[in-house]
Amino acid sequence: MFFHKQELQYKANPDKPDAVYARKLQEVLGGQYGEITVALQYSFQAWNAHIPGKYRDLLFGIGAEEMGHVEMLATMIAQLLEKAPLGITEDSIQADPAVAAVIGGTDMQQAIVAGAGARAADSNGNPWQGSYITASGNLLADFTANANAEMQGRLQVARLYHMTDDHGVRDMLSFLLARDTMHQNQWIAAARELQESKMEELPVPSNFPIKKEAREVSYQYLNFSDGKTASEGSWASGPTPDGKGEFTYHEGPTTSAPMPPPTHPDARFYGTTEIPNTVEKMAGTVQDKLNRE
Amino acid sequence: MFFHKQELQYKANPDKPDAVYARKLQEVLGGQYGEITVALQYSFQAWNAHIPGKYRDLLFGIGAEEMGHVEMLATMIAQLLEKAPLGITEDSIQADPAVAAVIGGTDMQQAIVAGAGARAADSNGNPWQGSYITASGNLLADFTANANAEMQGRLQVARLYHMTDDHGVRDMLSFLLARDTMHQNQWIAAARELQESKMEELPVPSNFPIKKEAREVSYQYLNFSDGKTASEGSWASGPTPDGKGEFTYHEGPTTSAPMPPPTHPDARFYGTTEIPNTVEKMAGTVQDKLNRE
Amino acid sequence: MFFHKQELQYKANPDKPDAVYARKLQEVLGGQYGEITVALQYSFQAWNAHIPGKYRDLLFGIGAEEMGHVEMLATMIAQLLEKAPLGITEDSIQADPAVAAVIGGTDMQQAIVAGAGARAADSNGNPWQGSYITASGNLLADFTANANAEMQGRLQVARLYHMTDDHGVRDMLSFLLARDTMHQNQWIAAARELQESKMEELPVPSNFPIKKEAREVSYQYLNFSDGKTASEGSWASGPTPDGKGEFTYHEGPTTSAPMPPPTHPDARFYGTTEIPNTVEKMAGTVQDKLNRE
Amino acid sequence: MFFHKQELQYKANPDKPDAVYARKLQEVLGGQYGEITVALQYSFQAWNAHIPGKYRDLLFGIGAEEMGHVEMLATMIAQLLEKAPLGITEDSIQADPAVAAVIGGTDMQQAIVAGAGARAADSNGNPWQGSYITASGNLLADFTANANAEMQGRLQVARLYHMTDDHGVRDMLSFLLARDTMHQNQWIAAARELQESKMEELPVPSNFPIKKEAREVSYQYLNFSDGKTASEGSWASGPTPDGKGEFTYHEGPTTSAPMPPPTHPDARFYGTTEIPNTVEKMAGTVQDKLNRE
Amino acid sequence: MFFHKQELQYKANPDKPDAVYARKLQEVLGGQYGEITVALQYSFQAWNAHIPGKYRDLLFGIGAEEMGHVEMLATMIAQLLEKAPLGITEDSIQADPAVAAVIGGTDMQQAIVAGAGARAADSNGNPWQGSYITASGNLLADFTANANAEMQGRLQVARLYHMTDDHGVRDMLSFLLARDTMHQNQWIAAARELQESKMEELPVPSNFPIKKEAREVSYQYLNFSDGKTASEGSWASGPTPDGKGEFTYHEGPTTSAPMPPPTHPDARFYGTTEIPNTVEKMAGTVQDKLNRE
Amino acid sequence: MFFHKQELQYKANPDKPDAVYARKLQEVLGGQYGEITVALQYSFQAWNAHIPGKYRDLLFGIGAEEMGHVEMLATMIAQLLEKAPLGITEDSIQADPAVAAVIGGTDMQQAIVAGAGARAADSNGNPWQGSYITASGNLLADFTANANAEMQGRLQVARLYHMTDDHGVRDMLSFLLARDTMHQNQWIAAARELQESKMEELPVPSNFPIKKEAREVSYQYLNFSDGKTASEGSWASGPTPDGKGEFTYHEGPTTSAPMPPPTHPDARFYGTTEIPNTVEKMAGTVQDKLNRE
Repeated sequence: MFFHKQELQYKANPDKPDAVYARKLQEVLGGQYGEITVALQYSFQAWNAHIPGKYRDLLFGIGAEEMGHVEMLATMIAQLLEKAPLGITEDSIQADPAVAAVIGGTDMQQAIVAGAGARAADSNGNPWQGSYITASGNLLADFTANANAEMQGRLQVARLYHMTDDHGVRDMLSFLLARDTMHQNQWIAAARELQESKMEELPVPSNFPIKKEAREVSYQYLNFSDGKTASEGSWASGPTPDGKGEFTYHEGPTTSAPMPPPTHPDARFYGTTEIPNTVEKMAGTVQDKLNRE
Repeated sequence: MFFHKQELQYKANPDKPDAVYARKLQEVLGGQYGEITVALQYSFQAWNAHIPGKYRDLLFGIGAEEMGHVEMLATMIAQLLEKAPLGITEDSIQADPAVAAVIGGTDMQQAIVAGAGARAADSNGNPWQGSYITASGNLLADFTANANAEMQGRLQVARLYHMTDDHGVRDMLSFLLARDTMHQNQWIAAARELQESKMEELPVPSNFPIKKEAREVSYQYLNFSDGKTASEGSWASGPTPDGKGEFTYHEGPTTSAPMPPPTHPDARFYGTTEIPNTVEKMAGTVQDKLNRE
Repeated sequence: MFFHKQELQYKANPDKPDAVYARKLQEVLGGQYGEITVALQYSFQAWNAHIPGKYRDLLFGIGAEEMGHVEMLATMIAQLLEKAPLGITEDSIQADPAVAAVIGGTDMQQAIVAGAGARAADSNGNPWQGSYITASGNLLADFTANANAEMQGRLQVARLYHMTDDHGVRDMLSFLLARDTMHQNQWIAAARELQESKMEELPVPSNFPIKKEAREVSYQYLNFSDGKTASEGSWASGPTPDGKGEFTYHEGPTTSAPMPPPTHPDARFYGTTEIPNTVEKMAGTVQDKLNRE
Repeated sequence: MFFHKQELQYKANPDKPDAVYARKLQEVLGGQYGEITVALQYSFQAWNAHIPGKYRDLLFGIGAEEMGHVEMLATMIAQLLEKAPLGITEDSIQADPAVAAVIGGTDMQQAIVAGAGARAADSNGNPWQGSYITASGNLLADFTANANAEMQGRLQVARLYHMTDDHGVRDMLSFLLARDTMHQNQWIAAARELQESKMEELPVPSNFPIKKEAREVSYQYLNFSDGKTASEGSWASGPTPDGKGEFTYHEGPTTSAPMPPPTHPDARFYGTTEIPNTVEKMAGTVQDKLNRE
Repeated sequence: MFFHKQELQYKANPDKPDAVYARKLQEVLGGQYGEITVALQYSFQAWNAHIPGKYRDLLFGIGAEEMGHVEMLATMIAQLLEKAPLGITEDSIQADPAVAAVIGGTDMQQAIVAGAGARAADSNGNPWQGSYITASGNLLADFTANANAEMQGRLQVARLYHMTDDHGVRDMLSFLLARDTMHQNQWIAAARELQESKMEELPVPSNFPIKKEAREVSYQYLNFSDGKTASEGSWASGPTPDGKGEFTYHEGPTTSAPMPPPTHPDARFYGTTEIPNTVEKMAGTVQDKLNRE
Repeated sequence: MFFHKQELQYKANPDKPDAVYARKLQEVLGGQYGEITVALQYSFQAWNAHIPGKYRDLLFGIGAEEMGHVEMLATMIAQLLEKAPLGITEDSIQADPAVAAVIGGTDMQQAIVAGAGARAADSNGNPWQGSYITASGNLLADFTANANAEMQGRLQVARLYHMTDDHGVRDMLSFLLARDTMHQNQWIAAARELQESKMEELPVPSNFPIKKEAREVSYQYLNFSDGKTASEGSWASGPTPDGKGEFTYHEGPTTSAPMPPPTHPDARFYGTTEIPNTVEKMAGTVQDKLNRE
């Protein structure tokens, strides 16, 4: 169950209106790595978890916080839009190119659809979607997904920080940046703990019988491009992070197989085949069969 | 530039047709973590990279290999469909529940749209989409995204391995599993090398002036759920992975702020406000203004 | 802020596994009118609201409850999948058409992607999306949207009720049905209260100066089809619900205007025009201009 | 069957070009509540209707009119774009910030893809989609959906009215506003008539045996937020609109249930479980089983 | 304007219910090349056309017919679902694998969402979307798009013809097949007429000053694959269809250029660069600048 | 298999930064008819092909080239963004309307998400999607699809050519225009060769027994609009392109059928029916049945 409290975790008051920036903030509200994503991603991971206890508690604990971040951003966006020119007074637009420029850069739907409010969409207006979420049931994979989400998220907030000089907005972003720092650290710590406990190991999924994979190519770097320095990295020689092999470097593939011949599905799919298949030329059998049906 | 060779990296020949399985394989071809995703993700990361040399070479080198994996899967899928019942002979369906069951579980569009061929879609028929890709320009964030993609991908292939007993299919999957093992190891190695070289550090982005974030909450685990064991993990006490702090544990938020009052945008957005806004009741000014325009 | 409690509002325990039903339940979790929709819809309406007090409190109060319903459904789905055949043992499938039939009807991604877990998607596997949400800032419009959402939602739950005889599932659905009954009543009551208070009236938006609309067609039923009984309803004669007019009935339009002539945008858009525009025929001016650029 | 007549229901001629406004108009052509939505929504409701006669005639009658509104908007958009700067002459853009601002705010695809024409998309460029449609077969639910669609639609047109001072555009909008007024009134009248005839009642679906829902919570307002005024509305006490109960007010839930324990699906889904599952530690049975397959 | 008549262009009555087939028919109603696509595609082409007269009349004339085909398919689908098992009686499902198989293959949303009705979606349940439409303003390009749409459409209907032995369904399909034959012929005839009139020529757009393209590569077949027979076709030697050149064949590219060096955008995008960018190592200038802001 | 070479097919160096143009170029990279579409479309057609040899070689040969065009565009876009104002320095924006205008017209996600890089999306920010691809297995249909794709693609590039005066950009576009000229010619040549070889004929699919279609309407132009000149084209009289008939012209339909009566699915779908279905009025049987379940 979720309970809502009519307070924010941190203040979300801009100094001044800025409709273009309100559009930009949509990215970290409703984008691929926005707050809706992490709120629902951590929650679904908890609901799909197979062990009770600290890992699931961690997921629930952060997931609910992120839902509150959605609220902070939505609240901030509404205020950035409140007194901003949003195209409602066209006359002034005509007169002032600076205002016109702002209008051009706004999210049209924040104005026309939401009446100067936030939306569940990103900075280009694409609606948020469930396919942004990752929740596989394998915690090592998912904690890595979470670490990535917090990295991408903090990166975007850092960029946004430099796209405004509004003290109120920057103040809120400084809070979100700190929380992203925390969550990056937490998911990395959790992934490590999983591995140290031997509950999960590399490669994910570690429980899959490794002898069933084609081990001869498990540690070969097959360089399908012609980059000269590809062999210089720690990914091309030396021990592998999973502790089970040694990297080797190869230019191109070490295996190959002929392409199987093209398929010949049922004639009633009407794919083009090498047998001329027009009515005139077709030998009786196939065309007759088609006719009879 | 890309050059195509009419060979496969590994053989892709099923022992027997299996249309339901052909649908399942679509997940690792055209799903969120399928081969189209990684092929294009690594390529876009290379195109958006800001440094020449080994890291970019690595991205190009693996990206092109993954494009070949798309081909292996598409080839396998076409063969699995080639002789399978796909609903084209309805009479037999009626007669045999086992066949009917298979038809029910197939991807309708593989038959009706592709004529017994593969599609750029996942196992539920959702078309692949560009928003699955991550390519931020920050290599530590992106290599973490890549490690996650290879983990989720190998996890899905491992599950698919147990969903068939076809030796030909399993043989191909054993190859893909091995390559996913390799790529997991490579992205983890690359992320480590980036950090050891001090080119990137935690938290991402490491170059953002950390004093500009609200450091007082940078290492607080704020548990917004009531899970009792949340404080037991390495994410709740002790040093943080970024080497810059100590985790502390807190039940709920350590900060709060009042919600700002609701916004009052221009009356011409016709949002509901506390001022009764019907024609009858409205004081002259606003309604008159609306009428005059 | 949102706080999570590791309890459910009502029990969510099926009697037995049922993977096909787990897929069906996705509709009311992640479909157009599923619980994610109403949870976020009411929350966004609250964040975009322009008046403090009882209406916004109502939105926050129900929104957070709905988030808990997402959790109940996700929990139920995971249990329905827990022991169900999901294709992981293909051998048994081949042997038993009844099991094969079940596999065919399952959500492939619940198995392959979520590892026998719930997803933020509907019963056909389409991911949930932000465009399902309505939050316009106009409360009379939005409460009507909410009433509709609860009607469609309860209708779907009622249908799902008859698609299972599992007592545990039906028990949970009986709870959700009751809550939908409540919420239908609440949004209707709220819409009435808004109108009785004269804060909003029909037609929405009531504050728009009505004389600015083409009043001569404001109450004409223009029947663009040939249905003989179209004029018999209360929508074709008598007073209108907004209290401002009388319905009249007309076969077809009462107005018409000629189509404006086709447009002639800049020649460099290369649209087809009546002026032959090939290189040979074109008079010097246009083609010369294109060549010069 | 549908028949087309090369006339418009009302004139659609702008006074002057305005490319930014052409983009904005896309919202009511191809947005969530645009004319494509209502045209197809009413048509699908008619095709899915289960009774002949006046209700279905009403759906067909309005549906076909709305298709003509799509045409009016597409025609208007093409004219607004006809002579407008759309980026085709970059030199002038560089020189004039006012023109540059206009370019920035245009729909890029109207120019590049449609050659200065309208598109089946909204004002942020998202393509129209079938999931905007509601057609459930239950007329009370669907008429409520329709009333909402007309309210949201008229609200958007009202906002757009204030975003231009072009007399031609405003003239067309005044016509659309009037038709939306009519259709709001019609759907509300139809919903009332359905209820008065006792064919449908509240709660939807009224035919579902109400004793099968958990009646003890059917009229409880469970406030999951802390808003102080939540209990003041007509939704918190007094008789319910369905005429079957009395509202009561409660802070938080009146029921609760423990979360069921996490699920343990088949080991071959490779979810993380509390049993250490690495190769080294795993007791023979499970890992042996995996190896054997 | 569009006018609806409550008649069908051809009869649409199945002999018997068939829910799986009802799902399949969705492809040609709401799929990429379904009737919604062609109805709206031809209409948008007409609205975006730049010449009055016969070409636009053709577009309007066929567009409105296709809208009636949507209706025929929706009507057929509702009847196929009317008496079919759709999962509403689970008991019988358990007992009969043949029925269970049917349920598994149905469109879940036709049952749960539409109440046994048609939807604006394809056979995998993906909602129809506006991006399926092509309407560029260039008639030669668009008539080619239309010819393709009718070919893909007739191909799909032909496949569907063999997926049923229901005489009523086949009767309706025989009508749609004939209309697709007609429309293929019409668009091909129209494309020819355009070219013969010299209003449009190859290559599209023919009005673009051809000397501005890099003519040296305009007729080179650059084979980026290693297929041995690639040079044997009429596309590799001889005159070109546009009448302006001679095909030549080349293995691989005839031109090449070095990749430009990676970009170095503003440091505040926090992309990874070769300059070690951690706080410790960074020379004063950049990091100081970041700190100062 | 695909091999990558770190060279471009043609140089891709702009003279100067231009962020708005970088957004526009996204259309031909990641739009409906962009390079990702053709690269994957031709590849999927090859993988779904049913004949070895020259046609499949052609598909592979062009498909791989197009993948290199994606790379050229991504490289160009990154450079156009490299030194362009992207909103990172808000102070200057405020001061200079011309810069502000540029910011307003940029792709927000190129900046915030990709860090001044290219994305797999179109010029309005919609992510590329797999449903843009056509690969049916029928080569005549698919080559027509390809011809259309190259026509639409070249048309868009031609429009983009006039939206910049940057010599470097125009140089690259002149190369792409030439390649589109070539590919238009090739697909048209291939479609002709298929028909001349009698492997495929019109109408597609030519192998379908034509007597099974309703031949009486196969060549009737049924004009469902009132355009006076509709009968003047070569599509309304004279021989048909498939060589099998004569066009005839008709105003409106030549056939019609009554609409079947509305369906009556199971009462448990709770659709509205003419039988009053409230609890009070319903005769015992149905309601009793519902209650009993």
